[in-house]
Amino acid sequence: MKSLGVIVEYNPFHNGHLFHLTESKRQTGAEVVIAVMSGQFLQRGEPALVSKWTRTKMALKNGIDIVVELPYAFATQKAELFASGSISILSGLKCDSVCFGSEQGKMEDFQKTISLMDNEKEKHDFLVQTFIGQGYSFPKASSLAFLKVTEDMNDILDLTKPNNILGYHYVKAIQEQESTMQPFTIERTGAGYHDPEFNDTPIASATSIRKHLFDNNGNIEKVQRFVPEKTYELLNHYLYKVGSFHQWEDYFTLLKYRILCSTPNELAEIYEVEEGLEHRVIHTMKESMNFHEFMTKLKTKRYTWTRLQRMCTHLLTNTRKENMLDVSSSKRSEYIRLLGMSRKGQQYLKQIKKDVEIPILSKVSGVDSNMLDMDIRATSTYAMKFNEPARSEWMQQEFSKPPIRYDEEKECFL
Amino acid sequence: MKSLGVIVEYNPFHNGHLFHLTESKRQTGAEVVIAVMSGQFLQRGEPALVSKWTRTKMALKNGIDIVVELPYAFATQKAELFASGSISILSGLKCDSVCFGSEQGKMEDFQKTISLMDNEKEKHDFLVQTFIGQGYSFPKASSLAFLKVTEDMNDILDLTKPNNILGYHYVKAIQEQESTMQPFTIERTGAGYHDPEFNDTPIASATSIRKHLFDNNGNIEKVQRFVPEKTYELLNHYLYKVGSFHQWEDYFTLLKYRILCSTPNELAEIYEVEEGLEHRVIHTMKESMNFHEFMTKLKTKRYTWTRLQRMCTHLLTNTRKENMLDVSSSKRSEYIRLLGMSRKGQQYLKQIKKDVEIPILSKVSGVDSNMLDMDIRATSTYAMKFNEPARSEWMQQEFSKPPIRYDEEKECFL
Repeated sequence: MKSLGVIVEYNPFHNGHLFHLTESKRQTGAEVVIAVMSGQFLQRGEPALVSKWTRTKMALKNGIDIVVELPYAFATQKAELFASGSISILSGLKCDSVCFGSEQGKMEDFQKTISLMDNEKEKHDFLVQTFIGQGYSFPKASSLAFLKVTEDMNDILDLTKPNNILGYHYVKAIQEQESTMQPFTIERTGAGYHDPEFNDTPIASATSIRKHLFDNNGNIEKVQRFVPEKTYELLNHYLYKVGSFHQWEDYFTLLKYRILCSTPNELAEIYEVEEGLEHRVIHTMKESMNFHEFMTKLKTKRYTWTRLQRMCTHLLTNTRKENMLDVSSSKRSEYIRLLGMSRKGQQYLKQIKKDVEIPILSKVSGVDSNMLDMDIRATSTYAMKFNEPARSEWMQQEFSKPPIRYDEEKECFL
Repeated sequence: MKSLGVIVEYNPFHNGHLFHLTESKRQTGAEVVIAVMSGQFLQRGEPALVSKWTRTKMALKNGIDIVVELPYAFATQKAELFASGSISILSGLKCDSVCFGSEQGKMEDFQKTISLMDNEKEKHDFLVQTFIGQGYSFPKASSLAFLKVTEDMNDILDLTKPNNILGYHYVKAIQEQESTMQPFTIERTGAGYHDPEFNDTPIASATSIRKHLFDNNGNIEKVQRFVPEKTYELLNHYLYKVGSFHQWEDYFTLLKYRILCSTPNELAEIYEVEEGLEHRVIHTMKESMNFHEFMTKLKTKRYTWTRLQRMCTHLLTNTRKENMLDVSSSKRSEYIRLLGMSRKGQQYLKQIKKDVEIPILSKVSGVDSNMLDMDIRATSTYAMKFNEPARSEWMQQEFSKPPIRYDEEKECFL
């Protein structure tokens, strides 16, 4: 079976995702599609709107055949590690191709830019450090350095655009990992990545959808025209069961407790707490009544909002620098955790199983892995939003729940 | 001025405390009374019903002249350290005498028992280890060893009684610290220490009073006849302002978060988490929906409920073994933190100030002390019960609030 990989968050699965999926299948001629999906916490350092299990159902109902979890160790990282973790999993699952959305939309430009940057690496890195020295954040410094290196050139990626940056790192990871997967890209149309407002097309950014879900909590009709019917049903069901969608404010008390009941030295051991940020974090938290206020006060020119939010996620989940040592050096996932599959997905797995070199996990109990422990802690943390007994049931599920199985012909879960 | 020290929790201040205070003044002829009082967490490993500030007010309104805080490092310990910390503070404040309640009620018996135990120390310690080896808890093993050593003797303390045990350690600490304070004891009358039921006298145990406060939350009339009027007013006021009294269940979510989002190694660094208890703690917490269930499942013959509750307090406040190293060796407080004083108390302090060798703290900001950091973390943790903005205001108070001043003639706070 010809297989295609996609790298997703589906927070939530919307019409833009459906368009990308359909178009990817058409362009690559794939018969089976594998999604590697972030778990309970996302790349922007936020809790997912709904759990990874509900998002897995969204994916399966909308045409994905296999959903595997991108481990926390990669899902909450900047583009480079996020990309290499994802690629290692799709490549491990023997995907023939990988297809990603980008602002650029032309594959040649990615290849060309990577070659160029290989040649200009020294100059680029020097410029990045220079701009950081001038007080710019890492992403801004990278953008400026890139613009400087590539001025007067044509057909070069615009690496100030978020999806171009991710795509760049996907293609780079494929090269570095000597994967045989073929990369494809599709131009993103309609809403921009961070566009907070709705327009008159059926495509809206996930950011704008989330904004409307929170602004009109309990009344989600306004987003109906931007998501597939099956997403809408699942969102409604989650809201009915859980009461509200997950957001940072739900975890503010825990974050405050973590920060104010730790010593500065303990906080400095947490991943991404760098350069004395622990003192600023403690000081700011003392004066903050909610998460938004905390972030607003914490923000400086030196650090982006996203960078600080990721740090908060690591504080919340108690993820220490030592936990990430292996991740930063290997840049590859140690396992492939199966969240769900269709009948076709199951067939595909049977077919490739003997060639897969990374362990495929259906359940996590009894597995000894530092990387997996981070996923489990992430779920334990995510579940703290609930009251008992839902909370304990949830945590138990994380150990005992087998992958979701979907019968795509009967359109039902087994 | 002739001064008397008392060691208290006042959780809450009740008629039995008033009786003890009046009788102590009478016996010792003291003109000024100093109470060293546990802060937000108590010796049984529980959060105090109401904050240390409200309990300070109770003390001042009921005849105490100076209230100082027994640091967390001593307040949440077994009898020996609890006693030596308390004695070091009262002795540091130049008290002429110290008076404690006991089941025995005769000072000579304390002295005699201490001499005896000095002589029989080796035999006693050997027996304690033997009984622990047979699976008994430390307090039970100590009791059994003591009974064995003292069988066939007369006028010996009954060291199976909780207040006799504390008194024994007070007197022992006075000797060890070569303090000139003279110890007195008053026989405890009326309700037993742990008696959960009311009887027909105006004296009830603090345990029974707390039980009734929780059983009839929001309706505290039933305890009115067991507490002085001023306690009753302050309890009512606290309830009005805060909504409910503090209890372990209020902190269960935080405890669960602490336990399930830490590694076993991290938990093993917490004070009193010994002998692999970290695994039992994690395993038990996964299955527990509330604090009472957690404790009931955690309890074994080997560990008393109180011992395990103290461990939970240290887990909650993130108190590590390394934090307690100095405490266990020095057994003395590094500072004397003033919580409140009457006019007379203020006069007394003025008079003795130049002779006091331990720093007296009116405010805690800017003081660098590991022991004090534990008190601050205890207050930060204790305040997590509240919603914002009360929570943040509370935490700020801990740094900025000067001692409470009480005018005993006008019966008002200044």
